[in-house]
Amino acid sequence: MIVVLKPNISKKDEAAVIKEIKQLGYKPHVMRGVERTVIGAIGDERTHQTLEVLTSWAQVENVMPVQKRYKLVSREGHKENSQIDVRGTIIGGKKFQVMAGPCSVEDEKQIMATAVAVKKAGATILRGGAFKPRTSPYEFQGLGEKGLKLLAKARKETGLPVITELLSEAHSEMVAEYTDIIQIGARNAQNFQLLIAAAKTGKPIMLKRGLSMKIEEWLLAGEYVLSNGNPNLMFCERGIRTFETYTRNTLDLSAVPIVKNESHCPVVIDPSQGAGRSDLVSAMCKGAVAMGADALLIEVHPNPADARSDGAQQVTLEGFAKLMQELKPFIAAAGRE
Amino acid sequence: MIVVLKPNISKKDEAAVIKEIKQLGYKPHVMRGVERTVIGAIGDERTHQTLEVLTSWAQVENVMPVQKRYKLVSREGHKENSQIDVRGTIIGGKKFQVMAGPCSVEDEKQIMATAVAVKKAGATILRGGAFKPRTSPYEFQGLGEKGLKLLAKARKETGLPVITELLSEAHSEMVAEYTDIIQIGARNAQNFQLLIAAAKTGKPIMLKRGLSMKIEEWLLAGEYVLSNGNPNLMFCERGIRTFETYTRNTLDLSAVPIVKNESHCPVVIDPSQGAGRSDLVSAMCKGAVAMGADALLIEVHPNPADARSDGAQQVTLEGFAKLMQELKPFIAAAGRE
Amino acid sequence: MIVVLKPNISKKDEAAVIKEIKQLGYKPHVMRGVERTVIGAIGDERTHQTLEVLTSWAQVENVMPVQKRYKLVSREGHKENSQIDVRGTIIGGKKFQVMAGPCSVEDEKQIMATAVAVKKAGATILRGGAFKPRTSPYEFQGLGEKGLKLLAKARKETGLPVITELLSEAHSEMVAEYTDIIQIGARNAQNFQLLIAAAKTGKPIMLKRGLSMKIEEWLLAGEYVLSNGNPNLMFCERGIRTFETYTRNTLDLSAVPIVKNESHCPVVIDPSQGAGRSDLVSAMCKGAVAMGADALLIEVHPNPADARSDGAQQVTLEGFAKLMQELKPFIAAAGRE
Amino acid sequence: MIVVLKPNISKKDEAAVIKEIKQLGYKPHVMRGVERTVIGAIGDERTHQTLEVLTSWAQVENVMPVQKRYKLVSREGHKENSQIDVRGTIIGGKKFQVMAGPCSVEDEKQIMATAVAVKKAGATILRGGAFKPRTSPYEFQGLGEKGLKLLAKARKETGLPVITELLSEAHSEMVAEYTDIIQIGARNAQNFQLLIAAAKTGKPIMLKRGLSMKIEEWLLAGEYVLSNGNPNLMFCERGIRTFETYTRNTLDLSAVPIVKNESHCPVVIDPSQGAGRSDLVSAMCKGAVAMGADALLIEVHPNPADARSDGAQQVTLEGFAKLMQELKPFIAAAGRE
Repeated sequence: MIVVLKPNISKKDEAAVIKEIKQLGYKPHVMRGVERTVIGAIGDERTHQTLEVLTSWAQVENVMPVQKRYKLVSREGHKENSQIDVRGTIIGGKKFQVMAGPCSVEDEKQIMATAVAVKKAGATILRGGAFKPRTSPYEFQGLGEKGLKLLAKARKETGLPVITELLSEAHSEMVAEYTDIIQIGARNAQNFQLLIAAAKTGKPIMLKRGLSMKIEEWLLAGEYVLSNGNPNLMFCERGIRTFETYTRNTLDLSAVPIVKNESHCPVVIDPSQGAGRSDLVSAMCKGAVAMGADALLIEVHPNPADARSDGAQQVTLEGFAKLMQELKPFIAAAGRE
Repeated sequence: MIVVLKPNISKKDEAAVIKEIKQLGYKPHVMRGVERTVIGAIGDERTHQTLEVLTSWAQVENVMPVQKRYKLVSREGHKENSQIDVRGTIIGGKKFQVMAGPCSVEDEKQIMATAVAVKKAGATILRGGAFKPRTSPYEFQGLGEKGLKLLAKARKETGLPVITELLSEAHSEMVAEYTDIIQIGARNAQNFQLLIAAAKTGKPIMLKRGLSMKIEEWLLAGEYVLSNGNPNLMFCERGIRTFETYTRNTLDLSAVPIVKNESHCPVVIDPSQGAGRSDLVSAMCKGAVAMGADALLIEVHPNPADARSDGAQQVTLEGFAKLMQELKPFIAAAGRE
Repeated sequence: MIVVLKPNISKKDEAAVIKEIKQLGYKPHVMRGVERTVIGAIGDERTHQTLEVLTSWAQVENVMPVQKRYKLVSREGHKENSQIDVRGTIIGGKKFQVMAGPCSVEDEKQIMATAVAVKKAGATILRGGAFKPRTSPYEFQGLGEKGLKLLAKARKETGLPVITELLSEAHSEMVAEYTDIIQIGARNAQNFQLLIAAAKTGKPIMLKRGLSMKIEEWLLAGEYVLSNGNPNLMFCERGIRTFETYTRNTLDLSAVPIVKNESHCPVVIDPSQGAGRSDLVSAMCKGAVAMGADALLIEVHPNPADARSDGAQQVTLEGFAKLMQELKPFIAAAGRE
Repeated sequence: MIVVLKPNISKKDEAAVIKEIKQLGYKPHVMRGVERTVIGAIGDERTHQTLEVLTSWAQVENVMPVQKRYKLVSREGHKENSQIDVRGTIIGGKKFQVMAGPCSVEDEKQIMATAVAVKKAGATILRGGAFKPRTSPYEFQGLGEKGLKLLAKARKETGLPVITELLSEAHSEMVAEYTDIIQIGARNAQNFQLLIAAAKTGKPIMLKRGLSMKIEEWLLAGEYVLSNGNPNLMFCERGIRTFETYTRNTLDLSAVPIVKNESHCPVVIDPSQGAGRSDLVSAMCKGAVAMGADALLIEVHPNPADARSDGAQQVTLEGFAKLMQELKPFIAAAGRE
């Protein structure tokens, strides 16, 4: 860590800082600059207590960490891309994957029709929400276990592996029994107890970025999964919260090259949540493919206008088939299959 | 709801929208404007399905809700300020309340010394974290139940009621057994399962605002508490996430008059999290008092430089005593005691 | 406009609102809903005074505009894509254009070497700053007119048209004398006097998005150009300000399909400013191409480490040549040349 | 500056960085840490070229400045609070000042009535816009010089000094002829040419914070005023842009103690722009006073519903008189007059 002292402090005040740095287990290294004295504190920032407490001292101007705080998710110690095997479907490999399906599982007819159609159009994983986190308690909260059963039925019928969201620690075993990938949603991205419970099921985890989560915080939330014994983690960007109101969220596609730089885990893009408008989904998908994403997560509904949640952002079955055709040249240009 | 149609659409496309509005249970009311036709859809937006799905229709430009989505937390149906009785200490009444204590309970000596000192200085409720949500899995996660027991001991010694954070649905009964107020933290502000579990304990709930939560979303999260049978809710502003990096968060003091306008529930300000720097705490507290907050939540530690979490933002025992003196004229100016 | 009244107001208060709506030239249309009364005010919102003043009335809850505020930049009245002819180079046509060159023009050798190299690699327009807006007064402010002369010399040598930034109304004629396109920078995006001065030179204008400019505000700033008699406007997204600190700004690629939806003007992406890091430029460029941008604006420097401004985000001559090769398949996939 | 190298780089790559640091005029100081090598570069960061260009080098992970970039506005070299004398009215002294008046000067009757009323209620400076920066070119742009003349007339009548906004370099002399304080608006806060032109008039300058301006950038914009020979600068917080949509902007009252910490210049709060809603103005004013602001800037209009700009946020003459009474105990509590 780097500790910057205020200008013109006394020798005694400086000595007190140096003493504290030693007491917390670091080796101090003093540099006298033009206006300020800077102390390099040498030691592992992940195993020693942070020196940031020093910023509460009157003679200290600033404390700056040098090391990265994440370790297991970091590409530094794991140069190769991680690949996640989901019933034979590899996420993070040469083949580009598409997860598609309705925002919420609503009934058997809806999920079956969607599953068959998205498979035919080229999707390789089926998505569908059974437990829905809703901003208002008066909105549809999902079918619960009944929804999970319908997803399992659709998997049996189509062979597509299934992804669904886990909302409650209390449901982790139940959800793991039915799903192939556990999704942790944006609102729970720093619900560390839920992350630990999900990790412990052993199922692959897809961790969405929180609405105002910095890249570093997102990677550290992922660290909760890997450090709890589950190596099968993928990150999913779904739009961040900004001042812009034209779209519901601002899809941050720069997250693709950044997470690829920093981590070995696969990256998924969710353009449906990202835009909140079905008319922007196609352009977002093309951008995601071109920028190096490993997979897409797209909301598809047989009749978006009758959807029980998020109708505005779901594409139709025909729209999805057309989109898959349009993506082909971009997938080829990106060197994927 | 108001449905705005695109300019120059066909009669048939317009008729289809009107039909769908009727089907979803609303009574359409057509207004032909200069460039656009606007349809007022009359019906209770909280009991009917939302018309927002219509934005996925090609002929629809925009759908605007008219009603407020929150009901039980709203001042509209509950004109009087709510008051919460915590072992005889009233939050939301004429007396201004101060909750103070360490970020984390660390050991008996630390919590006892703090409890005695803050009581002497005028604090009326003791805060302390036993379960800590930490950005990194490698940081101190709190003492758990041992911390709860120490809080209970400090209450016995000083008579101060206690507030502590609930992190996991699985702990709701355990935490409720020891604490007088349950705190829901910013990262869990839309963890609705946790909110429901907390509500069901019957204990008063203090709901912190999420880092990027709009006022409406915050009120709706509070609606989860009231609609689950618990009327004792207070809101706590603790800083939102913005582009500014000088402080850890940007304390949004305008939340005080806004929540007071919209809701009958008490409002608490947390300047410690809000600023992340102990040198700004005093000014923030004065502002909060002047703007009409009902209580403050202040982090106090006997030796902030040795704190196991968030040392930079905790004030010393002496600093806290001085602060309480400085606040007096502002509390009087605000017409509080 | 839609005026939403508060619940349970008196007949007299309602009548006062209706009277004011009429006085401001609108025709009121009353709809009585379940909880609230809503008044549709029919009339052209662009020629009448706004009704937003009504929100200061105690009986009014909300006022919502229905019309779009921009007109000349809007695709509604101009369905075809606009094309801008810059000395024979068409921006907004089938051919994808690349503007490249240094952040600042530093000396003759630097700008000449860059101009020759970017032309060889396939760039079609030369960029270079002569007047630089710098956060601190102690930073290099550009060569001024000397820089403009060097740009003109590089144009003569290579045949590449030139784009440079206009910083001051007082310089509009001088800059227009040398440049082929006038750039209005992010910090001046709502400096309307500068926009008017630039428009009046008759040169094509590239308007960068301000750091926290909503799409609507950006389009309205463009409206200042078109309504001052200059039809040759293009919009340039260069990153917005968010909470994320990993990159200097957050490049909002969703601006491409959104501006294309709303406006007929060409869209340019600046990945150099957008990312602030040269290692992310390549992925950003690919995304921009795939999402439908008409052109790129890329900072290129013979020796970024010695650059007098923004060295961290400029790519080398070799890096640029390689990037142009990598973009080819994406340009083809996007159906461009 | 601190240069952090990537882990496991070669000796040759390290030597190249050290050589460049020396070439740019700094003295390198190498520290070998647990995982990374860190180089302290000793030298004045304000007079040498920045080392941030090194972040474009493959072997460099991060470059962190140590010094503050602002100098003349900084409290470091100027411990005492600056006081600005405006025709005998002192801003930044013991007396709390209130600037009040309409958003726009509309006609003689309006400005005279307002001036007389605000003076009677206790305001000490008259505000009024003659040149108005408007988001849309179709909105009222102010009366121009005619408005300036009306302000001068109101000053003659009431004795109140006057503040008005400067929008264009071309108007700097004309505006300076009429006004006592020049206001630089939020949209022009980084229009450095305008700042220089304003500074050179010699009139006191009030610099509003840009919508997404970091504190450091704001102080550096102020540095443009002081370094151009004008010591009479005050900073005005008027709300920043965040994700919240309940208010037009989010008034960042923490700017008061922060700017007071960092700078010797007076701080003014504009609650009218900050909230955009007149019903929040009173609470905002109380908070500003309590937190240590030196002055308020409040929009007051005889009939807000008929205002030609920003009617929603202007308070009535009666409302203003009542507000001034309510502020008295808070001004006293803050130790001001």
